[in-house]
Amino acid sequence: MSAKVGIIMGSKSDLHIMNDAADVMKEFNIDFEITVVSAHRTPDRMFSYAKEAAGRGLSVIIAGAGGAAHLPGMVASITVLPVIGVPVKSSNSIDGWDSILSILQMPNGIPVATVALNAAKNAGLLAVQILATANPELAIKLQDYKDELRRKVEETAQDMEDAS
Amino acid sequence: MSAKVGIIMGSKSDLHIMNDAADVMKEFNIDFEITVVSAHRTPDRMFSYAKEAAGRGLSVIIAGAGGAAHLPGMVASITVLPVIGVPVKSSNSIDGWDSILSILQMPNGIPVATVALNAAKNAGLLAVQILATANPELAIKLQDYKDELRRKVEETAQDMEDAS
Amino acid sequence: MSAKVGIIMGSKSDLHIMNDAADVMKEFNIDFEITVVSAHRTPDRMFSYAKEAAGRGLSVIIAGAGGAAHLPGMVASITVLPVIGVPVKSSNSIDGWDSILSILQMPNGIPVATVALNAAKNAGLLAVQILATANPELAIKLQDYKDELRRKVEETAQDMEDAS
Amino acid sequence: MSAKVGIIMGSKSDLHIMNDAADVMKEFNIDFEITVVSAHRTPDRMFSYAKEAAGRGLSVIIAGAGGAAHLPGMVASITVLPVIGVPVKSSNSIDGWDSILSILQMPNGIPVATVALNAAKNAGLLAVQILATANPELAIKLQDYKDELRRKVEETAQDMEDAS
Amino acid sequence: MSAKVGIIMGSKSDLHIMNDAADVMKEFNIDFEITVVSAHRTPDRMFSYAKEAAGRGLSVIIAGAGGAAHLPGMVASITVLPVIGVPVKSSNSIDGWDSILSILQMPNGIPVATVALNAAKNAGLLAVQILATANPELAIKLQDYKDELRRKVEETAQDMEDAS
Amino acid sequence: MSAKVGIIMGSKSDLHIMNDAADVMKEFNIDFEITVVSAHRTPDRMFSYAKEAAGRGLSVIIAGAGGAAHLPGMVASITVLPVIGVPVKSSNSIDGWDSILSILQMPNGIPVATVALNAAKNAGLLAVQILATANPELAIKLQDYKDELRRKVEETAQDMEDAS
Amino acid sequence: MSAKVGIIMGSKSDLHIMNDAADVMKEFNIDFEITVVSAHRTPDRMFSYAKEAAGRGLSVIIAGAGGAAHLPGMVASITVLPVIGVPVKSSNSIDGWDSILSILQMPNGIPVATVALNAAKNAGLLAVQILATANPELAIKLQDYKDELRRKVEETAQDMEDAS
Amino acid sequence: MSAKVGIIMGSKSDLHIMNDAADVMKEFNIDFEITVVSAHRTPDRMFSYAKEAAGRGLSVIIAGAGGAAHLPGMVASITVLPVIGVPVKSSNSIDGWDSILSILQMPNGIPVATVALNAAKNAGLLAVQILATANPELAIKLQDYKDELRRKVEETAQDMEDAS
Repeated sequence: MSAKVGIIMGSKSDLHIMNDAADVMKEFNIDFEITVVSAHRTPDRMFSYAKEAAGRGLSVIIAGAGGAAHLPGMVASITVLPVIGVPVKSSNSIDGWDSILSILQMPNGIPVATVALNAAKNAGLLAVQILATANPELAIKLQDYKDELRRKVEETAQDMEDAS
Repeated sequence: MSAKVGIIMGSKSDLHIMNDAADVMKEFNIDFEITVVSAHRTPDRMFSYAKEAAGRGLSVIIAGAGGAAHLPGMVASITVLPVIGVPVKSSNSIDGWDSILSILQMPNGIPVATVALNAAKNAGLLAVQILATANPELAIKLQDYKDELRRKVEETAQDMEDAS
Repeated sequence: MSAKVGIIMGSKSDLHIMNDAADVMKEFNIDFEITVVSAHRTPDRMFSYAKEAAGRGLSVIIAGAGGAAHLPGMVASITVLPVIGVPVKSSNSIDGWDSILSILQMPNGIPVATVALNAAKNAGLLAVQILATANPELAIKLQDYKDELRRKVEETAQDMEDAS
Repeated sequence: MSAKVGIIMGSKSDLHIMNDAADVMKEFNIDFEITVVSAHRTPDRMFSYAKEAAGRGLSVIIAGAGGAAHLPGMVASITVLPVIGVPVKSSNSIDGWDSILSILQMPNGIPVATVALNAAKNAGLLAVQILATANPELAIKLQDYKDELRRKVEETAQDMEDAS
Repeated sequence: MSAKVGIIMGSKSDLHIMNDAADVMKEFNIDFEITVVSAHRTPDRMFSYAKEAAGRGLSVIIAGAGGAAHLPGMVASITVLPVIGVPVKSSNSIDGWDSILSILQMPNGIPVATVALNAAKNAGLLAVQILATANPELAIKLQDYKDELRRKVEETAQDMEDAS
Repeated sequence: MSAKVGIIMGSKSDLHIMNDAADVMKEFNIDFEITVVSAHRTPDRMFSYAKEAAGRGLSVIIAGAGGAAHLPGMVASITVLPVIGVPVKSSNSIDGWDSILSILQMPNGIPVATVALNAAKNAGLLAVQILATANPELAIKLQDYKDELRRKVEETAQDMEDAS
Repeated sequence: MSAKVGIIMGSKSDLHIMNDAADVMKEFNIDFEITVVSAHRTPDRMFSYAKEAAGRGLSVIIAGAGGAAHLPGMVASITVLPVIGVPVKSSNSIDGWDSILSILQMPNGIPVATVALNAAKNAGLLAVQILATANPELAIKLQDYKDELRRKVEETAQDMEDAS
Repeated sequence: MSAKVGIIMGSKSDLHIMNDAADVMKEFNIDFEITVVSAHRTPDRMFSYAKEAAGRGLSVIIAGAGGAAHLPGMVASITVLPVIGVPVKSSNSIDGWDSILSILQMPNGIPVATVALNAAKNAGLLAVQILATANPELAIKLQDYKDELRRKVEETAQDMEDAS
C-alpha cells in the first residue's frame, strides 16, 4: 500500500528528531515514508516532491527544518495537502527562534501547521488526527492513546501521593 | 446539516480577527459555527464544548486567543479532533510573543496546529486542507484558490514590469 | 489535620524543582500535599482538583509547569483560592520564556501570582506570607527567616572584608 | 478603620494603570490607601513605608513600577507582608520587558507575586483572594465575581451564536 | 542594454521599501529591472526567475520579503549569483524579527547577503559595490557618494556648532 | 589611606566575576574595598553603605548583581557618587537579560553607568577613567594600558600573518 | 573657558534626544560643546574628535547613536576619557535593542558607560557625577538636585493622599 | 599575485570560526590574506587596513567579530569595497544577538553584507560569488559546488529511503 504520510527533513542531522514522527506512524499503523529533502540544497527535488505528493497518495506532509527553515513553507506553497512544520533546534539555530519564526509566520494563503520546537512526536500525532477526521477507527485509537497518557499521569500521581 | 468546523475565541474582542476564518468557510461552502468560549472565564463551557465537539459532528476546531492563551491547548487536551490555534495579538499581549508561545509550545502528546500571529485566514485554509484529505472536490477548490493567488501576483508583476 | 497548601506540577520531571516549595512548608511546619496534576494529560483531574480545593481545606495552591504552561492559569480559572505559578525551565521550554509568558500574562479577572523562573522556594515563601496575613505566629517566623538571611550575608561580608 | 491594602506606585504617571487596583478594592468594599512611593527618588520614604506597613495594619501591598522597576522587590525585601508587583509599560520601558523582568526575577528568599503587564486589576483581585483565605465572606464575593465573569461571556456567546 | 541588477519583492506592498534600491540604481546609472516574485504564491515563477537570471545577464539579485521571508534564500538556492536580502517589516511581521531571521540564518553552502531591516537603499549600494569590483568607474562614483555623505554631516555639524 | 573605589556585589557567588574589577584596582594601584551588600537580603546595610560612601572617602562605587538586579540602582538612588553597574549572568538569570535590563533601564534622575554582561574588568577600567579625569598620572597609565592592548593585538596579527 | 563635556551624536535626528544632556550641563553650569560626529559617515572626523578630546580640555564625552551604534564604542577605543553611551531609539532601530546591545556589549579593555534607552538626561547627570568626584561644589549641587527630586515626589504623594 | 580577499577578525579567538572562510578561498583557488584587526584595540590599524585595502588589490573584505561588533561596519565606513560581516557567537556575546544586531543594522549609506551567526563559510562563498560576477570560470566552479551539495543530499536521501 502506498504511503499516507510523508516525513521529510532538511538535513540528515534532523533525523534523531524527526524519527519521533515516524514512531508515531508505526504506533498507529499508518503507512509513511521518510527521507531528506533540502529546500536550499535540492530545490528541484523539493519542487518535485511537493508537486507529486498528492498524486502519489500522500495525505499529509510533515516537514522538519532548522535555522532559516524554508522547507515546510515552500512545500506548502506547491501542494494543497496539509503541511505540518517542525521547527528543529539545529546546531546553526539561535536557540530555535529562527526555526520557529521562519516556519510559523507564513503569509495569508499558505498555511503551515506549526508544532513546538523539536516536537516531531506532536507532528506525527497531528497527522494521525487529520487522517482520523475521515477514519473513525483511528479516532478511537487516538482516544485510547489519550486515555493511556492520562493513566500514566494518574499512576505517577498516586505514587507521589503515597510517598508523601 | 451540522457544522464541520467550529471557530471559537477567548473573547469577543478577537472577533475581527477570527472572522477571517469564517470568511474562508463561506468561500469554500463549509458548514461552520462561531462563538466565544473562554478557557479562563467559562472553563466548564470550554470543557463541554471540547468534549461534545466530535459527537456533534465537528471535524476540526479553530481556536483563537491572546496573552496567556490557553484555549487552543486546553481544547486539544480534551478532544481528539485536530485543533488549529490562532495566536491573537490582543491588547493585553506583549507584541504577540505570549500568545504565540503559549499556543505553540504544547507538550508531547497534545499537539496544536499553530498558525502565524493573527492568521485566522490561514487557520481557515488549514481546516479546509484537512477536510480536503477526504474530499477530492475540496482539494480541487483549494487548487483553484492557489491558482487564483498565483494569477493575482502575476498580474501585479506584469503591471509593475509594464510601468518600469 | 488537613493540608493548607497544595503543591501540584504538570509533570513528575518538575519534582526536583517543586520540592523546594515542599521544603519551605516543612521548615514553617505547614501541612501540605504534593502531587502531579497535568492540565493537558489529565484535564478532568485538574478540574476536580481545582473545584474541590477550597472544600478540602486548602488555602493556597502552588502550581508549577513548563513550556505552554497552562496548569496555574487553568486552576486559577476554576478556584477562588490564590494560585501561585512557578514557571519551570523544563527540557521542552525555550530558555523559560514560554513558561513565564504563559503563566504570567493572564487576562483580567483571573490572576496568577507568578514567581521567578524555577523559583519554587519563593512560591513556598509567598504561600507562607499569605497564610501569615491571618496568623501572627507565622509572621514572626517569617521575620526570623528574613533575619537569618540577613545574618548569613553579613557573615559572608565580614569574611570577605577580613580576607581583603 | 485602617487600610488593609496599600497600593503604591513609582510615579504619578502610573496612576491611570494602578487605579484599576483601587477600583477592585472599592468593588469588594476593602479599606485601602493609594499613594506614590518612589524607590529611586524617595528611598527613605520607601524604607519607612515598607517597615511600617505591617504595624499600620496593612495585610497586602500592591506595588506598580516600570522600566528598571525596583519598588516591588525592595518593598518585599523590607516587609514580610505579601507584595504584589505590577509591571507597568511606562514610557521609558522597552515594550514592558524591563518592567517584567526586574519585578519577576527576584532571588530566593524574597518573593514578589507578579501579575501581567499593566494588570493592576488582577493585582487587586489577588489581594482580595489573599484576604479571603481568612474571610469566608470575601471568598463568597469572589465566587460571585467569577460567576458574573462567566455569565457575561455566556451572554456574549449567545448573542454571537444567535447572530450567525 | 539588458538589466544588470534584478530587484524583486514578495508582495507589491513591499514596493515603497524596495523602491529605495531602484533609486540607487538610477543614481548610479545601472540598468535594472523591478518586479514582484512571490516564493509562496508563485513558486514556479520564482524558480524560473532564479534559474534564468544569470543567462539573462543579471549580475546581482536584490530580494525583499517580510514575515516568514523565503524569497531571498530560495532564489539563492537556485542561482549562483550573489543574492542580497532585504528583511521587510511588513504588516504581518513581528517587529521585523521573523523577516530578519528567516533571511539571515541560511545554512552552510547557500549565503544570502543580508542588510538591515527595510534597508533597500543599502541593498542597492551593496549591489553597486559588487559591480564596482570589476568596474573602476563605479568605484570612483562610490567614493564620490561616500564623500558627499561626509560633506553633508560636516555641514550639519558646522551648523550645530555655530548655533551653540 | 582610605579606599577610593568600593566594589560591592549582591551575593558571594558573584565574586569570581567581580574580582576582575579588583584586579584592575591592583594593576592601577588604586585603594579599594570589596564586600557583599545585598539589596534584598540586607536592605539596611545597603542603605548605610550608600549613605556613608562619600563621607568615607569613596569616589566611585562598582556594584554587580544578577537576576532582578536592584543593587546598582538602589545605591545610585541614595548616593551622588557615580555608580557603575555590572550585570552578572548568575545562575538564576535568564541568559543575562534580566540582569541587564534591571540595571540599565533606570529612570530619569538616577543614572547607573552600565557595562557589558559580566564585564567587571571594564567596570574597573571605567572607575579608573573617572578617577583619571582629575589625576593626570592615572590618565598616562590608562594610555599605557591602551598601548599595551594594541601591542598584543599587533603581535598576534604578525604571528597570524607570518603563519599564513 | 574651554568645554569640559563633549556631547556628540551620530545624526542630527538624534538632537531632540541629546538636547536633554545639554540641558543638564546648563542646569549645572558646566561648559560643554554639542555637535554631530558620525562614526560611519565621517570616520576621519570621529577619529580626530576622539584623539584630540583630552588635549582640548574635555573630561567626559557623551555619545548618542542608534541602530548599529558604533560611535560610543569607537570613541572609547581612541580616547582614555570616560565615554558615556546613549542608545537612541532611532527610526531605523528595532525597538532599541540594536542600539543598546551595540553600545553596551563592549569587549574587555574598552568600557562604555551605558545609560538607558534615550536617557540623555541621565548621561548628563552621570557626566556631572564624574566631574563632581573632584569638585565638592558640584557634589553639593547634585545632592540638591536629588533632594529636589525627592521633594517633588513627596508633594505628589501628599496630593494623592489628600485626594483619596 | 596579490590577495583578492581580505579576511579579518576582531580577536584571535575568532580564528576557529573565520578559518572556514579561508578554506573556501583555498577550495576555489583564490588569493587571500587573513589577520587580526581589532576596531577597539587597534583603531589606527583598522583605519589603515580599510583605507589601503582597495589600493593593495583587495576586491572583497570579510570581517568577523562578536559582542558589540564594530569591525565590519567601521571598515565599511572607510572603504568602498564590499564588506561581508560574520557575526561571531564569542564568549562575551549574549547568544549572538549583540553580534548580529551590531553588524546587521547599519545606517543608510554604509551597507554590510551580513551572513548567519558563525557562518564564515557562507561569507567565503559570498566573496566567491562577488568575484564570479566578473569571472565566468569562477561562476562555473560555483555551479559545480552547488551540484555537489545537491548530490550529497540526494545520496543521503537514497540511503535513508533504502533503509526504511
